[in-house]
Amino acid sequence: MQIAIVLYDRFTALDAVGPYETLGRVPDAETVFVAERTGPVRTDTGNLALMADKAFAEVPHPDVVVVPGGPGQFALMEDEVLLDWLRAADETSTWTTSVCTGSLLLAAAGLLDGRRATSHWLALDLLREYGAQPTGQRVVFDGKYVTAAGVSSGIDMGLALLGRIAGDEHAQAVQLLTEYDPQPPYDAGSPEKAPAHLVEEFRTKSRFILT
Amino acid sequence: MQIAIVLYDRFTALDAVGPYETLGRVPDAETVFVAERTGPVRTDTGNLALMADKAFAEVPHPDVVVVPGGPGQFALMEDEVLLDWLRAADETSTWTTSVCTGSLLLAAAGLLDGRRATSHWLALDLLREYGAQPTGQRVVFDGKYVTAAGVSSGIDMGLALLGRIAGDEHAQAVQLLTEYDPQPPYDAGSPEKAPAHLVEEFRTKSRFILT
Repeated sequence: MQIAIVLYDRFTALDAVGPYETLGRVPDAETVFVAERTGPVRTDTGNLALMADKAFAEVPHPDVVVVPGGPGQFALMEDEVLLDWLRAADETSTWTTSVCTGSLLLAAAGLLDGRRATSHWLALDLLREYGAQPTGQRVVFDGKYVTAAGVSSGIDMGLALLGRIAGDEHAQAVQLLTEYDPQPPYDAGSPEKAPAHLVEEFRTKSRFILT
Repeated sequence: MQIAIVLYDRFTALDAVGPYETLGRVPDAETVFVAERTGPVRTDTGNLALMADKAFAEVPHPDVVVVPGGPGQFALMEDEVLLDWLRAADETSTWTTSVCTGSLLLAAAGLLDGRRATSHWLALDLLREYGAQPTGQRVVFDGKYVTAAGVSSGIDMGLALLGRIAGDEHAQAVQLLTEYDPQPPYDAGSPEKAPAHLVEEFRTKSRFILT
């Protein structure tokens, strides 16, 4: 089994590394970081680069596609190199997945039309404009399409999909090895739980970021 | 403020990326990935490389030191280049931190003598042998030394330390932006919660890995 994790300029690192560290532990799977060109790809902060070990053309038929999100996604919503690769890979994939605003790229490629899906909480309205049906869930399965909410939700998605592919016990073993027993020091991880003024502040800012 | 995240061959990616994505969002901080030499550094799976943008010699006085864990740590327990850098950086750091078995490197450098600390659950006995006092907590503060349990706990540590440095509200904003509202699909993230036979299996294996 080949798992392809897509990189592009200004992606969010944890969107990619969450699924890599969980889903990537399917027994005997090959996980490959893929981008338009091989070489280092910078994250949204500019302070980190992950290596793309393969170019899109070298990975035509991955079994699993993972598309992370990040502010760099907006520049790619009409990027035919990426969108064509996503469409072609999806034709033979077993699972096509995303984290955060990565679902907007899947939607822009026409892969989420009419499907239940999710995205970063600030991008749910936009996801609907691109033809998907946003849900409030953290991880959404619709057939072979699996989308996760913002950034850290890729860990939950990775474990859930690992369970489907490799069985519950293997997924539990990976949860134990990664000691994923979360104890956030605050309870502000969703717009329903965070202080209202923070939510409002980001919604105001996002009008500039997301449009 | 400069935050230095250490990389070395066969580190665990999420150990480094969890703190990067949370703690790294201290306002106006510079986060730098640092290793003995600049260039790509491969993770434990071999399927991913992160770029070290600076060599140790270029980052003599970081304000915050973050040492991730991973199986590659065992080869470095007597590596004087790394241990000398850790000791020197610690002399002027405001916070010296680790995730997972990164605490064994801090301990090997003599920085955790007699201090309360933690590590991956499989490494707690070894941490004691190196002079620290292991606790069962997920994130342990002892003065300026902050250690986190296995792999994913670096996210919790990153948020907790971000709150100390930049205030609770900023940490909550980062939790909201990274949508860190964890919903693991299983409840097997600690040896107390996971199926007993899995815990036993890893304990048996770890006798070969950790000694």
